[in-house]
Amino acid sequence: MNINMNDIIVKKRDGGKLTEREIREFVKEYTLGNIPDYQASALLMAIFFRHMDDEETFTLTDAMRASGDNVDLSAIKGIKVDKHSTGGVGDKVTLVAAPIASACGVPVAKMSGRGLGFTGGTIDKLESIPGFRTTLEPAEFFTQVNEAGIALIGQSGHIAPADKKLYALRDVTGTVENLSLIASSIMSKKLAAGSDAILLDVKCGSGAFMKDQKAAEELGEIMCRIGTAAGKKTAACITDMNQPLGRAVGNSLEVIEAIDTLKGEGPADITELSLHLAGIMIYLGGRAKTASAGRSLAEHAVASGAALARLRTLIERQGGDPDVIDDYSLFPQAKFEEKVLAESAGFVAAIDTQLIGAASQHTGAGRATKEDTIDHAAGVTVEKKIGERVTRGQTLAVFRSNDKKKAKAAADMARAAFSITLEKQTAPVLIKSTIGL
Amino acid sequence: MNINMNDIIVKKRDGGKLTEREIREFVKEYTLGNIPDYQASALLMAIFFRHMDDEETFTLTDAMRASGDNVDLSAIKGIKVDKHSTGGVGDKVTLVAAPIASACGVPVAKMSGRGLGFTGGTIDKLESIPGFRTTLEPAEFFTQVNEAGIALIGQSGHIAPADKKLYALRDVTGTVENLSLIASSIMSKKLAAGSDAILLDVKCGSGAFMKDQKAAEELGEIMCRIGTAAGKKTAACITDMNQPLGRAVGNSLEVIEAIDTLKGEGPADITELSLHLAGIMIYLGGRAKTASAGRSLAEHAVASGAALARLRTLIERQGGDPDVIDDYSLFPQAKFEEKVLAESAGFVAAIDTQLIGAASQHTGAGRATKEDTIDHAAGVTVEKKIGERVTRGQTLAVFRSNDKKKAKAAADMARAAFSITLEKQTAPVLIKSTIGL
Repeated sequence: MNINMNDIIVKKRDGGKLTEREIREFVKEYTLGNIPDYQASALLMAIFFRHMDDEETFTLTDAMRASGDNVDLSAIKGIKVDKHSTGGVGDKVTLVAAPIASACGVPVAKMSGRGLGFTGGTIDKLESIPGFRTTLEPAEFFTQVNEAGIALIGQSGHIAPADKKLYALRDVTGTVENLSLIASSIMSKKLAAGSDAILLDVKCGSGAFMKDQKAAEELGEIMCRIGTAAGKKTAACITDMNQPLGRAVGNSLEVIEAIDTLKGEGPADITELSLHLAGIMIYLGGRAKTASAGRSLAEHAVASGAALARLRTLIERQGGDPDVIDDYSLFPQAKFEEKVLAESAGFVAAIDTQLIGAASQHTGAGRATKEDTIDHAAGVTVEKKIGERVTRGQTLAVFRSNDKKKAKAAADMARAAFSITLEKQTAPVLIKSTIGL
Repeated sequence: MNINMNDIIVKKRDGGKLTEREIREFVKEYTLGNIPDYQASALLMAIFFRHMDDEETFTLTDAMRASGDNVDLSAIKGIKVDKHSTGGVGDKVTLVAAPIASACGVPVAKMSGRGLGFTGGTIDKLESIPGFRTTLEPAEFFTQVNEAGIALIGQSGHIAPADKKLYALRDVTGTVENLSLIASSIMSKKLAAGSDAILLDVKCGSGAFMKDQKAAEELGEIMCRIGTAAGKKTAACITDMNQPLGRAVGNSLEVIEAIDTLKGEGPADITELSLHLAGIMIYLGGRAKTASAGRSLAEHAVASGAALARLRTLIERQGGDPDVIDDYSLFPQAKFEEKVLAESAGFVAAIDTQLIGAASQHTGAGRATKEDTIDHAAGVTVEKKIGERVTRGQTLAVFRSNDKKKAKAAADMARAAFSITLEKQTAPVLIKSTIGL
């Protein structure tokens, strides 16, 4: 090993700047298992306090990107645009925006993870469509994107193993909450995924990792700088996560809501955010001169039915039953449901979104450990959102599960999530700012 | 385990105060191996940045003290006073001050470690006296102190294993340099050693761990507060380590210099510091009303020969050859010596004490690893100290070893240690301040 870890820790601890060689050697040797976790965690804590500048952050990102496979999408024609959300409750926007962008001529070649969380990932959601295959051979994947304009598959291969190892360590050593570390973790995977442009949806609010708008904006800015430095057009939107997005949380429930939205019948927030992000994707993909021109194309693709048709093509090409689009009873159905009722009348003032998410996970909609299986029918429908009027005894949310006890327990968990006041309330602003356009 | 380590790390990271239960559980479970090193090192780094207050520091110290054996000295009559030095080059003061204090009626029941460093520990030094035994059974140890007033043996048992494990981790994770962690490490061992009062000699300067007087004073103060909180009379002296103490560095060389000092013929600095510290020990041991009255008793014990007689008794009782006191040729002799000569005339302005120490270690006088054996005859005699006039070609230092190559290499190493200028220089102030009296 060509570095002395103790010296590097002390250097960062005392406010020094790590050299490119020091960062690259650290990432390489740590991934190889040649640097013990206890030195890595001490360095991460020193970074937490002393921060990294852009140059250090770019190098860390690139070193983690280089630690594993790099996807080569050059076989696909056109400008490939990746869209990434930092994660929230009820976020099914990819299922809406991707078909819209594809219908507007932007090739969508998306590989998604499964992950842990309140619901499954995009891939788990798609698997709630009977027959849908999320594994394609590379040649099949490229051909499908070139012919049909869209493919959505599970991530295979070995993307940024250094990030995986470092993230697992950060998660148990109080070293998650640093902007450079968060940004480099996300961007190392995005850069390895091979797209030409990147659109980041940075969630902020009670249901998001970033509670604070200013911090979310700083995260968006540093990620845009990382992407740009790596030669990718990168933009970021800071969007609200103080309540679930749309009304559905859960795998098949979210696919249904996405289809509704593509039919022009979705909830206002999902509709608005999907059109906004699709418009930026269309712009980044070179199919519109500005994001607002992209937005107009997106609106037209929904109104004309082209976007919904593109989703149908996607389902057909990947072996799924396209009739689900017209008949939601073909989706897996939950046997049990349990309602959360309003205990007083008034207006919904706040929703503990984290708690709704945790309750949704508890129905079986999300995994707590990698080994858990997902109940595709499980989840929650949020019937009242911030600013809406409720009467006493009215339904606030309906929890669904194929396990009766879980549905009950989830509803019990979620009862405290709704704050109701007598004063009128306004809904939070959905799209707070956009960076990098 | 009753604590969530990640929560504790985050609490300290965000500036919170750890509870007594959190600290005690951390120390207990870490010592048992139930907390991984990577969480402990992250917590230590968070402590480095956020510090601990006195209450936290006292608890940490006591938890580490309680992690192992606690020596019971109650079988020894009188007030037992322990003296501890934070370590420096040429520090043989214990070998002088302990017989003086004992001759003045303070029972000396000292257990010392061996340790790594520039020379051996006090125990290694004593072992350069032919026949000297540093291992006594507990009953023998107590009897000897009660009858002869003094015993000096090697540390047996299992003192503060939590500190041992934590220190080893701090040493490789850039988390040594925090006053609370340094103070609790030292004091956990002192409190476990069972004395009634503690005198700390905190070294400061180029040859010491603490380079800066203010930091050394803060360390002395926090250690005094820890000792006092634990019910022990505790005092600390901040003393100079910008040059080797006395002229001798090395095991038999230092014993010889200590004997010289007890004869009233030692170097000025060793004589002064030994009388000063012995005076405080005599005061802490209840044999004088003030430290300065203790100092007068100490001077008298040297002048009368009582202190030297006490050293003779110590050597005799522990099986050593007391004739070494009158005939230094009975000590192990080094076969080879190598001089460092002055390359220019002038005054010694500075001595890189760390470098002199490292060179001394290189002669064989000190251990680099626990497995190394010590060359008791090896070491260095520093012939010129700060402020002294030198002529070109005059001897600055003589390195001694039983390995010719080592003597040569050590002298080569040390050549750069002496700075000589044409301007007159004054020696640094030896005793900078005293705390806790």
